[in-house]
Amino acid sequence: MRLLTYADGGDARLGVRLAEGVVSVARLDPTLPATLIGLLAAGKLEDLRARVDAAGANGAMDEALFVEDPHYLPLIPRPGKVLCIGRNYAAHAAEGGAETPTFPEVFVRGATSLVGHNGTIVAPRCSDKLDFEGEFALVIGTTCRHATEETALDFVAGYTLFNDATLRDYQRFASQWTVGKNFDGTGGFGPELVTADELPPALEGLTLRTRLNGDEMQVGHVDDLVFPVRRLIAILSEAMTLEPGDVVVTGTPSGVGFARTPPLFMKSGDVVEVEISELGVLVNTVEDES
Amino acid sequence: MRLLTYADGGDARLGVRLAEGVVSVARLDPTLPATLIGLLAAGKLEDLRARVDAAGANGAMDEALFVEDPHYLPLIPRPGKVLCIGRNYAAHAAEGGAETPTFPEVFVRGATSLVGHNGTIVAPRCSDKLDFEGEFALVIGTTCRHATEETALDFVAGYTLFNDATLRDYQRFASQWTVGKNFDGTGGFGPELVTADELPPALEGLTLRTRLNGDEMQVGHVDDLVFPVRRLIAILSEAMTLEPGDVVVTGTPSGVGFARTPPLFMKSGDVVEVEISELGVLVNTVEDES
Repeated sequence: MRLLTYADGGDARLGVRLAEGVVSVARLDPTLPATLIGLLAAGKLEDLRARVDAAGANGAMDEALFVEDPHYLPLIPRPGKVLCIGRNYAAHAAEGGAETPTFPEVFVRGATSLVGHNGTIVAPRCSDKLDFEGEFALVIGTTCRHATEETALDFVAGYTLFNDATLRDYQRFASQWTVGKNFDGTGGFGPELVTADELPPALEGLTLRTRLNGDEMQVGHVDDLVFPVRRLIAILSEAMTLEPGDVVVTGTPSGVGFARTPPLFMKSGDVVEVEISELGVLVNTVEDES
Repeated sequence: MRLLTYADGGDARLGVRLAEGVVSVARLDPTLPATLIGLLAAGKLEDLRARVDAAGANGAMDEALFVEDPHYLPLIPRPGKVLCIGRNYAAHAAEGGAETPTFPEVFVRGATSLVGHNGTIVAPRCSDKLDFEGEFALVIGTTCRHATEETALDFVAGYTLFNDATLRDYQRFASQWTVGKNFDGTGGFGPELVTADELPPALEGLTLRTRLNGDEMQVGHVDDLVFPVRRLIAILSEAMTLEPGDVVVTGTPSGVGFARTPPLFMKSGDVVEVEISELGVLVNTVEDES
């Protein structure tokens, strides 16, 4: 199943992407939670799946249930926690002059930094060092504490894409990266949650690609993660409760702009795409801050 | 005005502390938002003040409005962002062997790490390096972006206390401190929001004290902040929107446990208090993780 969040007036609504288009969950079954985080917290993912199947996912769906040309929002507009992992591919750590970490580098993004598929990544007034970082993210489905690597995947609802766009100068003004990672409108998040049942466990074997204006900038292999998905969940949940709708953004491979010769930063009008073919393509356009 | 969040069954409720006790906002006026973050987001702080005054704050309040022996929750149980500032007193940076920062060190706490006044700080199974960090925090009252130092205080609803309890080993397993700062039940937050009108601007001139089992461990002077309140708000809001209910935890002075000779860490049964006399005393007891 492929789930997304779209705007309906001022509200964030849950949709299901089928081959024919996007179905409104609120129209399909108003008794189901109206948001993705609500659906996960209520443990209703399988109820939704059954409801979609019953309504005729294979071409028999009532046309009135579809949303025309949905305006995507961040996949989860107000997550409890967005835990981002730094330097999680050895080649990316090396291109930044850092050693491969022995414990995950974790920083946090606030909801105010997130932007949806097709949305605008904002190049702020105060910096011209806006860099791309294509990544994949997992979304927690059920409350998780003290998971082991053996149980970790039981807590994952599914996977999506992320562009962890970063102001490189602000990232390095202090030892902690938080400010450079939290500018408004810099965290591309989506387009859709692809539920784990449709994907290889922990996305093993898949390939992540980032393109800038059509040119391939980053190619990463999920199997090269320093801390793979199961290990991340075990380490994080040793410390903290992971809640439904919490997000773990798993890190970017090599090929980012600052490490190129000459360095390459994003500017207004650029189009940046992050792709794992099994998850889709996250597309964002860069615009200057107004 | 002094506002707090207390538990009513499974719900978080807003209360007002008066000399006679704690008044339930829901009983006082059920048309007002039922949570502190809701009250701030709706811009209803002054409406509540008027309602309290009209109901007879000075001893004439109906007894049925009072909550007996309220069970405190984290002042804001689900903040949008909790932005914590590291090394914001020069003497504390020095005791950790670090230089005084030239840009704020910012890390983020998730809601799962927070605990209320009188609540339990949890000493986790996996570490015996649980340290105290007494601090004060500000709570954003109105949406803020691109504040200047001149306008910064206009966006502050008020101030409270914080114990940024830290697992020192996990804090240093990587360059980013997030994991050591996000164990469940380590962020004491409260007891009450004291609105800014009752306090000196930016808390100038006030003194912060931390006690462990009655012994004074930390004494800090707000005037010694490397990045004072106005400057923090200007710097943070250059990058990101600060929303009503967002929290900025301003940093700890010198005297923390790890820097003592011999090092001093907290253990089950310890009682830790953080005080600014104008804000009250935040009290937490340490218990081992079950």
